[in-house]
Amino acid sequence: MGVFIVMRRWGNAGSALKHAVYLKGCCCKRSIKTACATMLKRVPVRMDMDIATVNALPFEDFVNLLGNVVEKCPIITAAVWSGRPFLNFTALEAAINEFIDALPESGKEGILRCHPDLAGRDLQSGTLTRESREEQAGAGMDALNSADASRIARLNKEYKERFEFPFIICARVNDKANILRQLSERCQNERALERARGIEEVKKICRLRLQALVLTDAPNKL
Amino acid sequence: MGVFIVMRRWGNAGSALKHAVYLKGCCCKRSIKTACATMLKRVPVRMDMDIATVNALPFEDFVNLLGNVVEKCPIITAAVWSGRPFLNFTALEAAINEFIDALPESGKEGILRCHPDLAGRDLQSGTLTRESREEQAGAGMDALNSADASRIARLNKEYKERFEFPFIICARVNDKANILRQLSERCQNERALERARGIEEVKKICRLRLQALVLTDAPNKL
Repeated sequence: MGVFIVMRRWGNAGSALKHAVYLKGCCCKRSIKTACATMLKRVPVRMDMDIATVNALPFEDFVNLLGNVVEKCPIITAAVWSGRPFLNFTALEAAINEFIDALPESGKEGILRCHPDLAGRDLQSGTLTRESREEQAGAGMDALNSADASRIARLNKEYKERFEFPFIICARVNDKANILRQLSERCQNERALERARGIEEVKKICRLRLQALVLTDAPNKL
Repeated sequence: MGVFIVMRRWGNAGSALKHAVYLKGCCCKRSIKTACATMLKRVPVRMDMDIATVNALPFEDFVNLLGNVVEKCPIITAAVWSGRPFLNFTALEAAINEFIDALPESGKEGILRCHPDLAGRDLQSGTLTRESREEQAGAGMDALNSADASRIARLNKEYKERFEFPFIICARVNDKANILRQLSERCQNERALERARGIEEVKKICRLRLQALVLTDAPNKL
């Protein structure tokens, strides 16, 4: 069995159908059907792979499918593949978080700097990754009135000047009002605290992206 | 002064004009003219920024311009930005190499796994990054006869099964015959040796990509 699942892991909006991933028959039929259907409809991708399917993925497919669970950092996914098989979803997530935690502070700042601004120029120019676009749209960042847009732009700028990395928040679990409040409040923090806070948010985003791809309730039959 | 330089740092071939980088007047005129000309002609991008220009880049522009000097690992560029200003080209390159060297072995394997196969499916499907496409084309990987193509495909597969990461070689300094010979020979190495050899090649590729963007002979006026 072999089915082409067409994915687009990073890059610009408007073209979700460029990156071909050939899954060598290791995906359950449900996953493949779901993925193909969502591709055609251009709605958020859900893969619902069980952990045994994830563990059986060759590294190319593992990186292509999960490589953007930390925004534009496929190296993290590619590194944790070395630690397979994963007992379950939690073990996979923990491996990612442990890799992040073991990075030097500059590496953590590097992760933060790979993230786009909320309601920033990547959103405006259509160059967000698919995941970021969906997350920002879900929080209404693509439909701001001009007063809110100006306020976010001003606060993003202030935040970046103060901390030298962008403001990061898990948009899927925050609404517009909450995002604006936190952006304003967090501008007042100390740099080290805010770096740690940004990484916490990266991990929340990562968990939700992973949950869209990997089933959380299917223990591995090791 | 402000000039839009339109870049495409990672993603698929065929669309070099998607990612807008707004350089805030900090590029020398020569750089901007060169970049614009090369964009329009779709020939390899040369930026020729001096180190002072590089040091003055906000992190977004630094990552957008230099983020693929290590293939699909913008986190590395984004991390070393923390260490600016760089005295010269050599210091910038050294910061990148030091970051790579400090990664755990899984992280080094992660870097290797972010690289495409030589003459592999990304080349065939047009999903190579611009840099990889140019490098592979320069070594004739896009114009192989069927015997060579089959041989490389077979050896790539053998290599990946043995080492669990792809064969990496700096294509710009090797011709087709040399690549084929090394691919065949290196399949016989031990895993740890081959991981280190792959990282050496990554660093060579990085140096050449950096040299296309940053002048090597202009000391910084610190």
